[in-house]
Amino acid sequence: MTGTPWVAAALLALAACAPKTETPEQMRARLRAESDSAKTAIEAANARFAGYLAAGKADSAALVYAEDAVMFPSGTPPISGRAAIQAQFRQWVGMGHWTVQPTTRQVEASGPVAVETGSNVTTFTPGKNAPRGMAARYPDTTNYETAWRKVDGRWLITKDMAVTTRAPAPAKTR
Amino acid sequence: MTGTPWVAAALLALAACAPKTETPEQMRARLRAESDSAKTAIEAANARFAGYLAAGKADSAALVYAEDAVMFPSGTPPISGRAAIQAQFRQWVGMGHWTVQPTTRQVEASGPVAVETGSNVTTFTPGKNAPRGMAARYPDTTNYETAWRKVDGRWLITKDMAVTTRAPAPAKTR
Repeated sequence: MTGTPWVAAALLALAACAPKTETPEQMRARLRAESDSAKTAIEAANARFAGYLAAGKADSAALVYAEDAVMFPSGTPPISGRAAIQAQFRQWVGMGHWTVQPTTRQVEASGPVAVETGSNVTTFTPGKNAPRGMAARYPDTTNYETAWRKVDGRWLITKDMAVTTRAPAPAKTR
Repeated sequence: MTGTPWVAAALLALAACAPKTETPEQMRARLRAESDSAKTAIEAANARFAGYLAAGKADSAALVYAEDAVMFPSGTPPISGRAAIQAQFRQWVGMGHWTVQPTTRQVEASGPVAVETGSNVTTFTPGKNAPRGMAARYPDTTNYETAWRKVDGRWLITKDMAVTTRAPAPAKTR
């Protein structure tokens, strides 16, 4: 009989240590909870970004981006790294006054990675250094796809792309 | 002495069941491995998509997209759901012959969610039903940001956006 408690304990250990395999339904519920939680944090980060930009604080706005973030503007090469993004924001802020009004449509998160889609209204009031004709492109409404990474408890942008909702200029046929 | 094996077994159980908290370094290594594995599968999916499109198989091409996928073309409203994406592909394929040559730059995955960035060369040879002037936009090189979800072992596109690398037409100044 001395073996009985040993066997019981071993069985208990086996039960306790059984791999906690999620059912598909449990996984979906976990991802939904992670996505909801990420959405709240991302909306707050977007609001901070909008505040910094409206205040002309290019450097603070760039802090919403990860060190290795990449922005993909239309018609120009990608802008790689927070330092380059910061420099781009400084240049833009030097041209005039910007506002953005992002509206998150959806966030899909898994652990420290999240994908956000949404739409954004950008306004631009040209200053003295605005390139000729630039103001004609604003206000502009865009759809965006932004990837985020949770670093030390903070969600930071890693990839950032947007497309205008404005119909393209007619293509030249000659 | 009958208690000894019981205690030993209990200690073993405790050690085996200690919560498997990842160190930051272990998490980074796991995410790197998940991203590498996802990249291989995503590149294969992109190659299948390119094959279907070049063969004019709009319906098969659309199967690379998740049921709830959203495409964000520039200048038009988002296209929501695989059925709508399939209809759009049929319309495009009806206009002429398309080829795409996607090159994955980076994949960042966590569990069943991945974000891919890359560049793509699209060619278009107009058929009889091509809208006037459409061919003038091609060949076009784009940068893209595509989100993927692993469903039953297969990576499917959930969000798809691309921006042209072509400089924008000069804005009207009058």
